[in-house]
Amino acid sequence: MAARIDTTVILGLGLIGGSLARALREQGFSRRVVGYGHREASLARGVELGVIDDYHLDLDAALEGASLVVVATPTLVAAEMLERILPRYRECEAAMPVITDVASVKGSLQRAAAGTWGGAMPPRLVLGHPIAGSERSGVDAARADLFVDHRVILTPAPENTPEAVQLIRDMWLATGAEVVDMAVADHDAVLAATSHLPHMLAYALVDALAQSPASENIFRFAAGGFRDFTRIASSDPVMWRDIAIANRGAVLDAIDQFSGHLAMLRQAVAAGDADEMLDTFSRAKRARDDFTAMLQARSSKRG
Amino acid sequence: MAARIDTTVILGLGLIGGSLARALREQGFSRRVVGYGHREASLARGVELGVIDDYHLDLDAALEGASLVVVATPTLVAAEMLERILPRYRECEAAMPVITDVASVKGSLQRAAAGTWGGAMPPRLVLGHPIAGSERSGVDAARADLFVDHRVILTPAPENTPEAVQLIRDMWLATGAEVVDMAVADHDAVLAATSHLPHMLAYALVDALAQSPASENIFRFAAGGFRDFTRIASSDPVMWRDIAIANRGAVLDAIDQFSGHLAMLRQAVAAGDADEMLDTFSRAKRARDDFTAMLQARSSKRG
Repeated sequence: MAARIDTTVILGLGLIGGSLARALREQGFSRRVVGYGHREASLARGVELGVIDDYHLDLDAALEGASLVVVATPTLVAAEMLERILPRYRECEAAMPVITDVASVKGSLQRAAAGTWGGAMPPRLVLGHPIAGSERSGVDAARADLFVDHRVILTPAPENTPEAVQLIRDMWLATGAEVVDMAVADHDAVLAATSHLPHMLAYALVDALAQSPASENIFRFAAGGFRDFTRIASSDPVMWRDIAIANRGAVLDAIDQFSGHLAMLRQAVAAGDADEMLDTFSRAKRARDDFTAMLQARSSKRG
Repeated sequence: MAARIDTTVILGLGLIGGSLARALREQGFSRRVVGYGHREASLARGVELGVIDDYHLDLDAALEGASLVVVATPTLVAAEMLERILPRYRECEAAMPVITDVASVKGSLQRAAAGTWGGAMPPRLVLGHPIAGSERSGVDAARADLFVDHRVILTPAPENTPEAVQLIRDMWLATGAEVVDMAVADHDAVLAATSHLPHMLAYALVDALAQSPASENIFRFAAGGFRDFTRIASSDPVMWRDIAIANRGAVLDAIDQFSGHLAMLRQAVAAGDADEMLDTFSRAKRARDDFTAMLQARSSKRG
C-alpha cells in the first residue's frame, strides 16, 4: 500500500514527536519522516535509532517539500514556531503543508496563529492534543505504540478545510489513537480542570510542606496516599510554567473554583458540621468510584 | 518460648485490629487474643479465620482477665471507648490492663482520656498509631504481615509508666514494625500535613469537578496524573469525617497554610510571573524527588 503522505516533518524530536515519527513510519502512513530541531545530537540519535529518516537544523530546508508538518515542541515554543512558519504561506496558501501540533493548550496557539493570518485560522492548520505521556522523556524514550488506545483531542476551526482535518484525523488513527473533536475553549477548560489544576495543587502542597519547619518529619512519615497524591509534583517545572502561562485564564478559573470549594469544606470542618463533611466526602467518593469504573470499562473494552 | 502476654483484647475487629490479632498470635506475643465488638458476624468470622481465639459482645466480659487492651475502633468511637473503660479503673489503678489504640488522631484521645482521669493521662494508657492500611477493609482482609517495615508512632505521656510504654513498644516490634516516639501535637500536625490535608484536597477537587456543568467531559478526558492524584478521594467518607472532627485544629491549620501557598501561586500565574512559577515548581520537584529517593533507600535497605 502506498503511503498516505510522502514527507512528514516533525519539529521537535522529544518523546511525543519521536513516538509519532516512529508510529507514522511503522504504519506506512508517511513514506519519509524528517526531524527538525536545534540540538543536533538528539536529531542524529533519532536517525541512529530509526525514529526518523533524516534531519535538518535549518527550518527552510526542513519545510521544503513537506506535505505534513507536526509542531511537537514545548507549548510556548510551539506558538513561536507557528509565528515563524505561517507568514511564509500567507501570500501563497496553496503551497502550505497541512500543519498540526501536540501542545497541551490550544487557545494560546489559536491566538498566535490567527495573529499571523489576519485574525482568522489558516485553513490548513488543525490544532490537536494527544493525551499521552510517560515519566521518561527525549527521543530515546520514543515508542511507536505510545498513542495506542489513548485519546487525541482535535479542535478544528470553522476555517479549516475538510481535507486538512481528515488528514490529521487519519494520522492519529494510524497511530492507534481514538480521536475526539472539541471546541478550543472546552479543551482548555477540561485540561485545566483535570490536569493543570492538579499539577498546581500538587506543586503548591509539596512546596508548602517543604518550607515548613517540620518538613523533615513530614516527609519521613508520609505514607502511600501522599506518594500517589504528590507524584505529579515531580513533573518538569519548565513545561508546567509554560502551560500555566499559555492557559492562564482557564487555570485561574480552575484554581478559583477549587478554592471556593475548599473554603466551603474548611467552613464545615471549622463548624464541626458532620453532615456537610459527610455529604461532600460521599459525593466525591461516588464520583471517583464512577471514574474508576469508567476506566475499567474502557480498559476491558480494549482487552 | 512463653508468650509475653496472656490475654490480649482487641476492641473492634477490622483490618487493623484483625491484622494485629493475627500478628500477635503468630509471633507468640500473646497466648490468647480475644475480640470485642457489636457485630457478632464479624467476630464469629474472626474465630473461623483463626484471627482471634474467642470473642465477647459484652465489654465487661471482654475486659475480664485482659493484660493488654487495644482499642482498634474508628477514631471517634475510640474516644467513647476510652470514656467507657477508663472510669472503671480510676479507683483501682492496679487492676488496669495496659491499654493502647491505633487511631489516626492522638490529641482528641488524649483529651478524652485525661477528661476521665482528673486532667492527667492514665499511667497505663499509651497512645499509638500504626501508619499502615490497605484499600481492603474488614476482618477478611486481616494479614499478619500488614505492619512489617511500617512505621508506628507512639506518643508516650510523662505520666506513663516505663513498663507500659515498653510493653506497647514490644508489641509493635513483634509485628515487624519500626517504632518511633513523637509528641501528641507533633503527631497530629505531621498527620494533618501528610495525610489529612491531602484527603481534604482530593475530596474538594473531585467534588468541585463533579458539580461542574462539564463534569462528564472532565472525567472522560482525565489521564493518569489525575487518577493518581484523586485516588484517595475513594477513601471511606465516615472515617474521614471522623478524622476531620477529631483533628480539627491541625486540619484547619494545614488547610490555611496550603491555601496561603496556593494564593501565592495563583498570584504568580495571574501576573504571568514566569520566574516565581519556575522557582515554586522547581523547589517542589526537588522536595518530591528527595522524597522518592528516601522511599527507595528505605525499601532497598529492607530488601
